[in-house]
Parts: sequence; C-alpha cells; structure tokens
Amino acid sequence: MSLYGGIEGGGTKFVCAIGSGVGDLRVETRIPTTTPRETLGKVVDFFLKQEDILGPLDALGFACFGPLDPNQASARFGQILSTPKPGWAGADVLGRLRSAFTLPIGFDTDVNAAALAETLWGAAKGCDPVIYLTVGTGIGGGALVNGRLLHGLQHPEMGHIRIDHDLKTDPFPGICPYHQDCLEGLASGPAMEKRWGRKAETLPPDHPAWNLEAGYIAQALTNYILTLSPEKIVLGGGVAQQSRLLPLIHQKVLSLLNGYLQVQQITRNIQDYIVSPGLGSQSGVLGAIALAQAALKHDQLTV
Amino acid sequence: MSLYGGIEGGGTKFVCAIGSGVGDLRVETRIPTTTPRETLGKVVDFFLKQEDILGPLDALGFACFGPLDPNQASARFGQILSTPKPGWAGADVLGRLRSAFTLPIGFDTDVNAAALAETLWGAAKGCDPVIYLTVGTGIGGGALVNGRLLHGLQHPEMGHIRIDHDLKTDPFPGICPYHQDCLEGLASGPAMEKRWGRKAETLPPDHPAWNLEAGYIAQALTNYILTLSPEKIVLGGGVAQQSRLLPLIHQKVLSLLNGYLQVQQITRNIQDYIVSPGLGSQSGVLGAIALAQAALKHDQLTV
Repeated sequence: MSLYGGIEGGGTKFVCAIGSGVGDLRVETRIPTTTPRETLGKVVDFFLKQEDILGPLDALGFACFGPLDPNQASARFGQILSTPKPGWAGADVLGRLRSAFTLPIGFDTDVNAAALAETLWGAAKGCDPVIYLTVGTGIGGGALVNGRLLHGLQHPEMGHIRIDHDLKTDPFPGICPYHQDCLEGLASGPAMEKRWGRKAETLPPDHPAWNLEAGYIAQALTNYILTLSPEKIVLGGGVAQQSRLLPLIHQKVLSLLNGYLQVQQITRNIQDYIVSPGLGSQSGVLGAIALAQAALKHDQLTV
Repeated sequence: MSLYGGIEGGGTKFVCAIGSGVGDLRVETRIPTTTPRETLGKVVDFFLKQEDILGPLDALGFACFGPLDPNQASARFGQILSTPKPGWAGADVLGRLRSAFTLPIGFDTDVNAAALAETLWGAAKGCDPVIYLTVGTGIGGGALVNGRLLHGLQHPEMGHIRIDHDLKTDPFPGICPYHQDCLEGLASGPAMEKRWGRKAETLPPDHPAWNLEAGYIAQALTNYILTLSPEKIVLGGGVAQQSRLLPLIHQKVLSLLNGYLQVQQITRNIQDYIVSPGLGSQSGVLGAIALAQAALKHDQLTV
C-alpha cells in the first residue's frame, strides 16, 4: 500500500497529513501561515521527520490557496500569483518542496483538490461535472469536468463573479479590493462581518443576514449551473455550514431558475443536488492526498 | 475519404450540408423551421436524394437548437425539451433521423457543435477550454473542456445567467419568459428591438444601444472567464457581428476584471482572446459535420 503526504495550504494555516487515502490518515499537523520561507520550511521538516518514523513516502500532494499557476508547461508553474498576502505573491511554493523531495508532487488549488476528493470519496461520488465552492474567509470554486480538474488560462476564480447587487435592499458597497461588490466582496465572511458589525458565526439564525447571504450564493450557484451544468455542487467553508443557509439556498436557486431546467435532480431533489461536503472539513487535506495519488499514477504511467 | 451529412437545426431554418470536412462542403440547402414532421421530413428527403447522386454517407451530425437532452444514457436522449416554439417541445428529433438512416449519428446543441468546429478548424484551434457564445435571436453558449463537449445534468444554458441590471441606467424590464432580465432577456436581438423600437441591425454605430449591449455581454463573458478559465472565447451570432461591439466588449471585460487575472492573453492580447468565429457563419453547419466525424470515429472504436 502506497503512502502519501498531503498539504492543504491556506491563508491562516497549512495542514499536513500522511496516509494511504480516505479513512487512513495516520498523522496530521497544523503550521501557521507566516512567511513562505518559515511555513514551507516547517512543512518540509514535518515530512522529513515523519519519513524517519513511518518510512518513505511515495508521493506528495499540495493543495494551495491561489491564485496560482497550475499549468505544468508554464514558466511560473507552482508559483503563487498576485495575492494581497504579504510575502506570498510570486513565491515558488512548489519549488521549495521540489528542492527537498525527489518524489512525484501533485499541485493544484485547494478548491480543485477538494472537488477531486469529494468526487472520489465524498458527496459527489461518481458525478461529473462537479463544483466545489467554499464560502468562508474568501469565496473560491474548483471543478472537475470530463474526468479532470479544470484548468485553462489559469484556474477557476468563481468567487469573483459579478452578481446582481440591489443597492436599495443592500447599500453595503462590498469589500473586494479588485471588484468591490463581486460575490466575494458581498458574501464572504469578512464582508458579512463588515456589513453587520459582528462575526458571521455570532449572527442568530433569524437574523436578516442569512436571507441576504443565501440570495447572493443562490445567484452565483444558478449562474454556475447554467454555465457548467454540474451533476453535483458541494458547498464547503465556514460560512456555508450555518444550518439555516442551505435550505434557503435551495429555495432561492429554484426560484431563480423558475422551471427553466426541467431535470428531476433540480426540480424534485435539489436538497441532494446542492450539498454539504461528504468529507466534512477534511475535503482539503484529502484533496491533497488525492493529488499525491494522481501524481504517482501519472508518474508511473509516463516513466 | 469519408462523406458526412451535417444538419444545423435552428429556430427559423435548418441548414443541411454534405462534405468531408472544412473546405469541402459539396452541397448545401436551407429548409424553413415549421413543424417537426414537415421540417425533418424534408431533411430526410434531402439526404436520401443526395445519396443517390453523391453516394452513401458514412455518418450524420445533428447540431440542434435547445434545450435538448444530450445524454445518451437518458430515456429522452435526442428530444427537444421545454421550448416556447409551437410543436417542438418533446419532439424526438433524433429519433426521426434514426428511423430513416442506419448510420452513426452525432447529436448535440448547435452551440456545442460550433465550439467543436471552431476548436478543430477555426479561431480556437488547439485551445482548451473553449467557449462559443452566440448573440442573436437568442443567446446560447457551448463549451469544449478537457477534450470533450460540455454536458452534465443537461448542457450549458449560458444565455440565461443573471447579470447586474441597473434599472437607473436601463429601466427596460427584459423579455425572457422565464427570468425576465437575465442576459438573454436584456441583450438578445429581440430584447434590443423591443427596448429601442427598431431592429438591432438598423441602429447606427454611434447609438447608445451598443455601449449598453457591450456592457451586458462583457459582464457575462467576465463571469464565464472566472468560472471556466477558457483559453479562447468565440463570439458568434448576428448581433455580435456589429463592428463596433467587439472592441467595446474587450475594453469592458478588462475594466471588469480590473487586473485580477494576471495572464498576458488577457492583459496584453484581449483582442486575440475574445474573437469572432474563424469559420464565419459556417461554425454551426461545420459543427454538425464535426459531430458526424466524431460519431463515425466512436462507432468504429466501439464496434
């Protein structure tokens, strides 16, 4: 049985784990996100130390916050691109791992990796296309389409789509430094906190915040559905886990589509169509393990 | 050399052609879209008659207006689904062809087929993902992703995404019978005609209509870019061919993205990124020929 190392690189922490797949994560650690040098140094140290204990790894997977360059043919492959996070713009995060390990290393966005893990083992098992959207500190989306994770000019940046913002019902101007009132600017956790003056998780279930939030997320999901025709949408992230939100989103997506898509999965079973992660909060780190598996397989195929 | 028949089924006419591929369309005819029985009867007659002259066809391709069921495993595969077009909702359009010909028959939406033709022979040669958007009597989008046309729960319905509609600058309520002021409701040819009281093609180049139209299309393209990360967007259809429109769209997409996607194809070369069809008005019928080629290849592989 092969042994994989997975890294879920996020804006506040890096989660590292070792295991053979879902149900077999043997060791896990959390490293604060400070500078690329310090954080990645600790990541490397963790895996080197664990290899002494558990034996050699067969591959690594790195599921990282973006925007990043995921195209293997590109000169900037493996780098973080523009990010407001001090010290991380232009950081060659994959290169740091490559210089320490001679293993196959899979690399992709955190949300693409989560989409892969949910398709292999979670709530979207056997579906294609699949969208994984996280709504938390930021809003990001990944997708698996025709059997592979979605790349192109770059990778999906679904959190920044523009939606209908009615200033009469919601005069809040939005907080995205690039687009002001794009989806992330209106509906991320920090946007909710700024609009209502308190953290999203402290807002009571009957607060009007949730109805507004559900409306924005529903608009975005409706647009993704009409663009990608996914067989399943998995909704992760801290904000999306508020229990009142998902039923409101279901209702609003139905109302926005207004019967246009006559498919039973939507018209009769929308609660099984837009769902919470089957892997709970582990979609990300298991996504990294899935990237490692794919990297090993690819490596074996091409060698 | 194999000989293919292609059918581009549209709301006002069906275009039928026979040839071996791009640059070799030997005969073409146009049949008005009336009832499924009459129109498809004439389509069948055309190909039967031409087979007497040109010899037997190896495969047929049918690129049809939608919404339709493109999933081969579905009970409704090959049928038109809900459509306001009298007589066509529920019509088994592929079945009519199957009952007349024992050939392999490829079947997909007109816009998916156009995306395929533009990728094989046109403006998007070698790109992946590719989006083909038509702006005319309706607005529809097709896509090729990871080497295959995009299907899922159904197929893309990009024309019906919701966009930001500022009622102060544009009090026109929209004309979509399902969504009122979705993209198609605000920006299709008939929407322009209703808003301005005259046909879009008669509006002079300096009319404010074009600036508004470019803004709506740019919003939609920006959302598709952030969702699908396409390597090329091909913009077809009658309305999109107005010469002033494309440069305005380029400028507005750049302004909406506001530097967020740091990729040269957008920041330096957007005029080569969002482009007119390389196959002109033949994207659709050549798409149908491409579907026929794919059907024959698939058939040969699986036999």
